Amino acid sequence: MKRVLITGAGGFVGARLARHLLANPPAVWGGSPALTLTDQYPLPPDLVADARVTAVVGPLGDQAALFSSGFDAVFHLASAVSGECELDFELGLRSNLDGTRILLEGLRQAGNHPTVVFSSSIAVYGPDPGLLMPAVVDEDTLPAPQTSYGTHKLMCEYLIADYTRKGFIDGRSARLMTVAVRPGKPNGAASSFFSGIIREPLAGVEAVCPVDPQTAHPLASPQSTVLSLVGLMTASRDVLKRRLAVTLPAVNVTVAEMLDALERVAGPAVRARVRFAHDARIAGIVANWPRAAKATTATGLLGFPGDPSFDSIIQQYIDDMRLAGHAATALKGMA
Amino acid sequence: MKRVLITGAGGFVGARLARHLLANPPAVWGGSPALTLTDQYPLPPDLVADARVTAVVGPLGDQAALFSSGFDAVFHLASAVSGECELDFELGLRSNLDGTRILLEGLRQAGNHPTVVFSSSIAVYGPDPGLLMPAVVDEDTLPAPQTSYGTHKLMCEYLIADYTRKGFIDGRSARLMTVAVRPGKPNGAASSFFSGIIREPLAGVEAVCPVDPQTAHPLASPQSTVLSLVGLMTASRDVLKRRLAVTLPAVNVTVAEMLDALERVAGPAVRARVRFAHDARIAGIVANWPRAAKATTATGLLGFPGDPSFDSIIQQYIDDMRLAGHAATALKGMA
Repeated sequence: MKRVLITGAGGFVGARLARHLLANPPAVWGGSPALTLTDQYPLPPDLVADARVTAVVGPLGDQAALFSSGFDAVFHLASAVSGECELDFELGLRSNLDGTRILLEGLRQAGNHPTVVFSSSIAVYGPDPGLLMPAVVDEDTLPAPQTSYGTHKLMCEYLIADYTRKGFIDGRSARLMTVAVRPGKPNGAASSFFSGIIREPLAGVEAVCPVDPQTAHPLASPQSTVLSLVGLMTASRDVLKRRLAVTLPAVNVTVAEMLDALERVAGPAVRARVRFAHDARIAGIVANWPRAAKATTATGLLGFPGDPSFDSIIQQYIDDMRLAGHAATALKGMA
Repeated sequence: MKRVLITGAGGFVGARLARHLLANPPAVWGGSPALTLTDQYPLPPDLVADARVTAVVGPLGDQAALFSSGFDAVFHLASAVSGECELDFELGLRSNLDGTRILLEGLRQAGNHPTVVFSSSIAVYGPDPGLLMPAVVDEDTLPAPQTSYGTHKLMCEYLIADYTRKGFIDGRSARLMTVAVRPGKPNGAASSFFSGIIREPLAGVEAVCPVDPQTAHPLASPQSTVLSLVGLMTASRDVLKRRLAVTLPAVNVTVAEMLDALERVAGPAVRARVRFAHDARIAGIVANWPRAAKATTATGLLGFPGDPSFDSIIQQYIDDMRLAGHAATALKGMA
């Protein structure tokens, strides 16, 4: 039985990944995994209740003994988020850089060469030094992070590449797109509105879009993101070759196209709940983000499906809300 | 009086830089600096004896209090070398990554926004993932380090870029070429022969070249390297723009061209002391190094002179040996 670890398993993507691995373990694993989930916050009750799951709650930095206990496969998703790291410089270094080093050292000490999928981010990209933002980013684009979060993610990518070159692990870094539609409430992230302008109107609530309708950005659904993480875990090194950081599939859309999709899926009354109020601070941050991404390796070589359209991303959110029994609140704005 | 720190000041390049700054302080410093030199090994007596110098001997990791004492300018050259870091994985992490973090944190705590020149390396480059080595590398080349040394240098470049973006320091990373001709004995570095095939024949000793005569590599003289480090320290941020890592000027030569230059400068009898004996291990390592580098920013924008030719690099070594009174031993192979 494969011994699998997910860090940050209490998060939105982590918990979905855990449920997916329990329901649909990759064929090459030969059955359900023994799944260890760790997070600094309590884990979802449905996962804790599963007999195949071991739950470990506590800071990443305290788990050195756990990390060296001999996993076959590791999904490393734990991370302080972008906004937090900009406000608290030491938090980013401690959580995202030192936390990853403690994990990697534990895996090296264990000595059993696990496969490691690391959740890096599109935040590694930024305007080229002295130049403009490239129109489309992919793995051949020179990274130029404009946040501490993106800096630490990129540093960890290179560290993981070196642990891999040395034969301590088999590491693969996934550069995640902005994941939408996120359920729940708006958060402090500058990217929060990409989910908010879909989620709030569906719930019957007015949403404010702080950027121009022509603002473009690469997005991916939660399910596409989970499938990409699993695909990267099981991808053959012969196919990956020396590529160690992979840009995940994206739907490249403008805000105007997102709202057109919302109208197609949910009707004009829902769309009409979005109004524009320019916010210079947020627009300034977003202007330093890629406008589009190309998944050269993930789509071209590995065949990850990605999302067919932004319409399907909205539909996935609607289906999720219905399945979870939240239609009465989350979808009460739909006719 | 400018308060200037050099780490790794006991090394070959560090000591030369210190002597240069004492003899020729940059005009913008308005006179001689108060120069603090630190190294884990004892510092050269001529530098320790200078009234303007404060010498601090000890490991980098023990100098947090020193680093936060309020420097205006820092040259961070201290580093375990490539070969050591490949043999001792933890040494590289501790010396080159953690050591740099302790320095940067000290400078941040001091709060006076020093200008920092970091000695990075051409070792950040390597064969593009899944592709071949680019024919010529420059700052727009995607880094792909193939050693722990190069990995940690690149991670530090990005960390320094983030400290700069946050306004804690004004950082500039210099990607140093292989510096030749190094005086002294051969060392364990795979690049050792680039100096050895010039130095040993000049001293009347036979030298073995472990690679093919058509092997190409970018080299720079010690003096050119020192001038570039000083030039980067005083370069205007308006000219550098957002460029934070700069590839230093190189003379791109093949081994055959190096030996032709040796014959021109020192005669055919000297050249005849080099014989070829292929070493698969060393040739394999060198095959992953850049064959040529282009100093787009350093030459094009900043106007660093670099070395005019490999002949002049050999002549610089000969002049250095004469000045130091070592001609009788170091040059006894010359007619």
